[in-house]
Amino acid sequence: MRRCCTFCFLVTVATMTLVIPAVDAPADEGMWLFNNPPERLLKDKYQFEATGEWMEHLQRSSVRFNSGGSGSFVSSEGLVLTNHHVGADALQKLSTAEHDYLKQGFFARTREQEVKCVDLELNVLISIEDVTQRVSAAVKAEMSPAEAHQARQAVMAAIEQESLDKTGLRSDVVTLYQGGLYHLYRFHKHTDVRLVFAPEQDIAFFGGDPDNFEYPRFDLDVCLFRVYENDRPVRPAHFLKWGSEGVSDGELVFVSGHPGRTNRQNTVAHLDFLRDRAFLFTLNVLRRREVQLATFSERSRENARRAKDELFGVANSRKARLGGLAGLQDPAVMSRKVADEMKLRDAVAADPQLRAACGNPWSDIGDTLRVWDELYVPYQLLERGLAFHSQKFEIARTLVRMVEEDTKPNAERLREYRSSNRESLLQALFSDAPIYDDLETLGLADALSLYYELVGIRGDPLLQEVLAGKSPRQRAWELVAGSQLQKVDLRKQLAEGGKAAVDASQDPMIALARRVDAAARKVRKRYEEQVEEPQRQAYARLAEARFRLLGTDTYPDATFTLRLSLGAVKGYTDELGQKIPPWTTIGGAYQRANEHDNTPPFALPTSWLDHKDRLLLDTPFNFICTNDIIGGNSGSPVVNRQGEFVGVIFDGNLPSLVWDFVFSEEQGRSVAVDARAIVEALRKVYDATSLVEELGR
Amino acid sequence: MRRCCTFCFLVTVATMTLVIPAVDAPADEGMWLFNNPPERLLKDKYQFEATGEWMEHLQRSSVRFNSGGSGSFVSSEGLVLTNHHVGADALQKLSTAEHDYLKQGFFARTREQEVKCVDLELNVLISIEDVTQRVSAAVKAEMSPAEAHQARQAVMAAIEQESLDKTGLRSDVVTLYQGGLYHLYRFHKHTDVRLVFAPEQDIAFFGGDPDNFEYPRFDLDVCLFRVYENDRPVRPAHFLKWGSEGVSDGELVFVSGHPGRTNRQNTVAHLDFLRDRAFLFTLNVLRRREVQLATFSERSRENARRAKDELFGVANSRKARLGGLAGLQDPAVMSRKVADEMKLRDAVAADPQLRAACGNPWSDIGDTLRVWDELYVPYQLLERGLAFHSQKFEIARTLVRMVEEDTKPNAERLREYRSSNRESLLQALFSDAPIYDDLETLGLADALSLYYELVGIRGDPLLQEVLAGKSPRQRAWELVAGSQLQKVDLRKQLAEGGKAAVDASQDPMIALARRVDAAARKVRKRYEEQVEEPQRQAYARLAEARFRLLGTDTYPDATFTLRLSLGAVKGYTDELGQKIPPWTTIGGAYQRANEHDNTPPFALPTSWLDHKDRLLLDTPFNFICTNDIIGGNSGSPVVNRQGEFVGVIFDGNLPSLVWDFVFSEEQGRSVAVDARAIVEALRKVYDATSLVEELGR
Repeated sequence: MRRCCTFCFLVTVATMTLVIPAVDAPADEGMWLFNNPPERLLKDKYQFEATGEWMEHLQRSSVRFNSGGSGSFVSSEGLVLTNHHVGADALQKLSTAEHDYLKQGFFARTREQEVKCVDLELNVLISIEDVTQRVSAAVKAEMSPAEAHQARQAVMAAIEQESLDKTGLRSDVVTLYQGGLYHLYRFHKHTDVRLVFAPEQDIAFFGGDPDNFEYPRFDLDVCLFRVYENDRPVRPAHFLKWGSEGVSDGELVFVSGHPGRTNRQNTVAHLDFLRDRAFLFTLNVLRRREVQLATFSERSRENARRAKDELFGVANSRKARLGGLAGLQDPAVMSRKVADEMKLRDAVAADPQLRAACGNPWSDIGDTLRVWDELYVPYQLLERGLAFHSQKFEIARTLVRMVEEDTKPNAERLREYRSSNRESLLQALFSDAPIYDDLETLGLADALSLYYELVGIRGDPLLQEVLAGKSPRQRAWELVAGSQLQKVDLRKQLAEGGKAAVDASQDPMIALARRVDAAARKVRKRYEEQVEEPQRQAYARLAEARFRLLGTDTYPDATFTLRLSLGAVKGYTDELGQKIPPWTTIGGAYQRANEHDNTPPFALPTSWLDHKDRLLLDTPFNFICTNDIIGGNSGSPVVNRQGEFVGVIFDGNLPSLVWDFVFSEEQGRSVAVDARAIVEALRKVYDATSLVEELGR
Repeated sequence: MRRCCTFCFLVTVATMTLVIPAVDAPADEGMWLFNNPPERLLKDKYQFEATGEWMEHLQRSSVRFNSGGSGSFVSSEGLVLTNHHVGADALQKLSTAEHDYLKQGFFARTREQEVKCVDLELNVLISIEDVTQRVSAAVKAEMSPAEAHQARQAVMAAIEQESLDKTGLRSDVVTLYQGGLYHLYRFHKHTDVRLVFAPEQDIAFFGGDPDNFEYPRFDLDVCLFRVYENDRPVRPAHFLKWGSEGVSDGELVFVSGHPGRTNRQNTVAHLDFLRDRAFLFTLNVLRRREVQLATFSERSRENARRAKDELFGVANSRKARLGGLAGLQDPAVMSRKVADEMKLRDAVAADPQLRAACGNPWSDIGDTLRVWDELYVPYQLLERGLAFHSQKFEIARTLVRMVEEDTKPNAERLREYRSSNRESLLQALFSDAPIYDDLETLGLADALSLYYELVGIRGDPLLQEVLAGKSPRQRAWELVAGSQLQKVDLRKQLAEGGKAAVDASQDPMIALARRVDAAARKVRKRYEEQVEEPQRQAYARLAEARFRLLGTDTYPDATFTLRLSLGAVKGYTDELGQKIPPWTTIGGAYQRANEHDNTPPFALPTSWLDHKDRLLLDTPFNFICTNDIIGGNSGSPVVNRQGEFVGVIFDGNLPSLVWDFVFSEEQGRSVAVDARAIVEALRKVYDATSLVEELGR
């Protein structure tokens, strides 16, 4: 399963040779900007022209789930289709011990039955404007990194606020090419989103962790929401028509979605850093949380329900990171990276003008990584908050910081507290999502223990103050049980009361957030000024060199903004020489369940067992294509030349996990739910004829 | 569940205040040597005299499982009773895809049906002899640590060989008080051990990981083997009579077993090292293996079967280590340790004679820890073999080293290759236990990746050679698939062929073991000479100071040798103020299963569901007592004043997990299966009347 900023792998008995072909035929590579589509590649390879109208229709039909995923409008009445695992965050927040939407699924037979989500925000991209010049002009060459960072933040905040004031649209300045370009993205924001349909998790995530990031697959990983405005279904200006025919073998298809993050333009030293430092740290944290949540879940069904969504996310990230790490440890990948970098360095060295303009960004980036290495642990613990892992702490920190930042001019605030982002911030801060003290205590105790482990009690007066003479477990219990921040009213009261109210609060979690804030801000400031800013400048020069040498017919690394990728529906030959077909069928799901005696995670839900004889078993279920995606693309619509909806992306196979660093279509594939399977299941398993009609089938 | 060298914990919602009482009333503390029992404590507190005869009977009835646990003879026909989880290693090795002894259980209704275990070795302690003087005399004051280490190894090997030659008994020189005393232990060794009875794992490990190290419990964690000699059941000189009555509240009971390892005599600096270095490293390795085995298991039932015993062991260790770490992070524990140490240091400082004799062992131990810190990772990777985690590698290394060591005089060999240990070594090396290439590859790939992660490819030519230009996964696959060491005949052939045969072998795992051996030996040598030996000398001086100041009426830290502990059957009050009763009943198991809808890990096996109405539901099932135990004590008999068998230890509760460092009986308890429940289940659930009769009931 894919998700924002994750990707994956699992060892099988077979060798996992990563086949990277010589770069002759142009590959279906690229997460292309909507204002810089791959026109030449489309024309030359597929004889297709993406007109402005075609592009705009796809853009305005595409939806971003701010919880971390993609989707699309699929009806004139505001239906939005995404993955079940993208909707999972909303499903989990709606669930109670009595009604488990995530596990049992849901179908609203009438509009009245549609359930309003707790804190979901959807964004639709309306326009893109290049603001590189204005951003760059604000940052003078003679500025120190600290000044440059401040100036850049200020101009970005100003552009966003101006745009918001002028258009009323959510306005984000997006950094592309790690600092090479700055674009202003304007979004239509939707916050009244209601749940219409979700299947049971057993069929949405059929095969579970073992089949995650694998293929063949048999998953109905879909979920339908409806967007409302003023308590009525919205009538979107654009939505995707349901494809009248399915996909065919070799057919050109497009994916329009929000890939979260790739690292393809990173220098080799930066990849080394990811492999030897960042990935290891993250994997250890993920594994420790996975073991913790799994054992918590085993204690009772209610525990399992409470932990389900997070446990899925953690296991998914663990598998993805392991796949990424395996790629970085593969000499075939790294030697290609080294060769590419050498070529670029040689070309720059051979061009005096370019050399003068670009300097040595590789060496400059290496310098920032040495600082980053030093800051890495305190940054993760204090600023990212891994030392205080709990929702109550997150709320406390947001309150403490928000009232503090509000005393400053907009231009000088921490970026997430800029005025143009306030609505989204409050949407999350005042969320009604349930908070479970047992899970909170478990997480916080382990987090405090991690803090203790990583810095040691002797040398760290802050840790000593945080623990207040208690053991991590005792202290976590005291903090969680003592805090009242589960009450949304209290949060509102503190937010309204401003700095005076927050400063005066006796809530122990607020007190903790106040106590650690200076240290957290200090490490963030060092990171921003000594790592982020110089890195951004160096990568901007690297991007400039690439533009000059290779042209601008390129795409930037993923940034969780809308991208277009192209490709073909296509099988492949695996490392054992087996031919893997381009799609599976609904009948295959029954067969696989049978092979595993219908036991979890290979158990089909009762609804599927009961309605087997109604289903056309040869209906295509999941298909694969060569489109370039990454975590965050989950829920992205797959469309054909006509711009019709033919499927929804939900995964990539194991060989695609290296796409974080390098694209290869030899075996790497995106995996989608076929539109035909969605309609077949809605009609025959769930009796959702009204929905099928609304989809125009 | 307890096991050699493990211990544990799990966060609950409640605070886990560790209550450590003021040391007024003598506690039931101590893992006492059989040649230095707690006579005074027994007399003063319990008015009991352990006669020489009483002690010898208990000693000779006790059995050590060399796979890591304890047991006892319970019939005149050689029946040995232990825990199911101690027998698990043997059960796993007997199991196939067709017959899963571990999960399904087993009962041999006739002698002919008893199944010979693959490589189980049991030891019965025959005698103890103090050889401290001879060992100490061999180590001269003027020797360098390297020479001292060599001299000590030589004299220990010589004593062992002489004893073996003279008595024919397995002879081990055991280091006590971290070097304060050396005792020669002679064992009767049994290697023809046959499986007689094992219950289903669902009742043996009822409650699974969630209930592990918890109380109340409802587990039939027992397993019965029979010892043979010359193909006939052995008639042991001593065996425990089955208790005619059960235990009563407050009754004095004894535990005779083999606690694996404690760290109670460690200096504070040494505890800091465990907390800040060793435990963290181990926990990360355990968590990574747990996630790996859990995901492997999820893929199919056969995978789950293959991984089951190891997964249990890993999760058990993880829980135990977490409990230990929580103790070390608890200021209440550490401040007591600091205070104790200060008192001892002050007493030594105040006594010029003692000061002259002991020097400053605390500082000397601190010095060794700095070296150990530096060696720690390479030692774990290369010498402990974590970089090559696989059975085939272990076999390869044993062969490579054995033929090399055999070219040296006995006194100069690595300790495990001394001639007196040869039989036991070959018993393991030529084991028929199945080896699964998929599990092997999974483990080795991850191990090579760990090696890569911890040392980095750039700076380590050995790693580069080990990987041979492949990724860890490719290389693991190549090594495992290419090696033929699953064939016992090949191992025998290589062992018989000696150094010439092993040097000439083309087996890739043998080649790998050959390649890394020099580096592994080098780090071991540094460890032995610069850490182990000076630490041993310093701890010997510390022990001497304690003997002189506190007398010799003490017990040494656990060393997986036979110990006696005393205590009372006794409930306690938990941290929420709830009264926890001294025993549970068989009926309670049904109630708990009901509360969880009889779903795993709270599912009772069919046999128990079917025979519920035959059982006396108020039969005591598990009881708790204040006896001092640790991992390795699993399977230890609990006996009453009459020396009768009344139960078998299988666990300790959460508050007992800190006993690794400090004993407290406020809430800490050992957990045992009641002898009455064993008989009740054998008779009514398993219709094992012949067994019940043999047990004399």
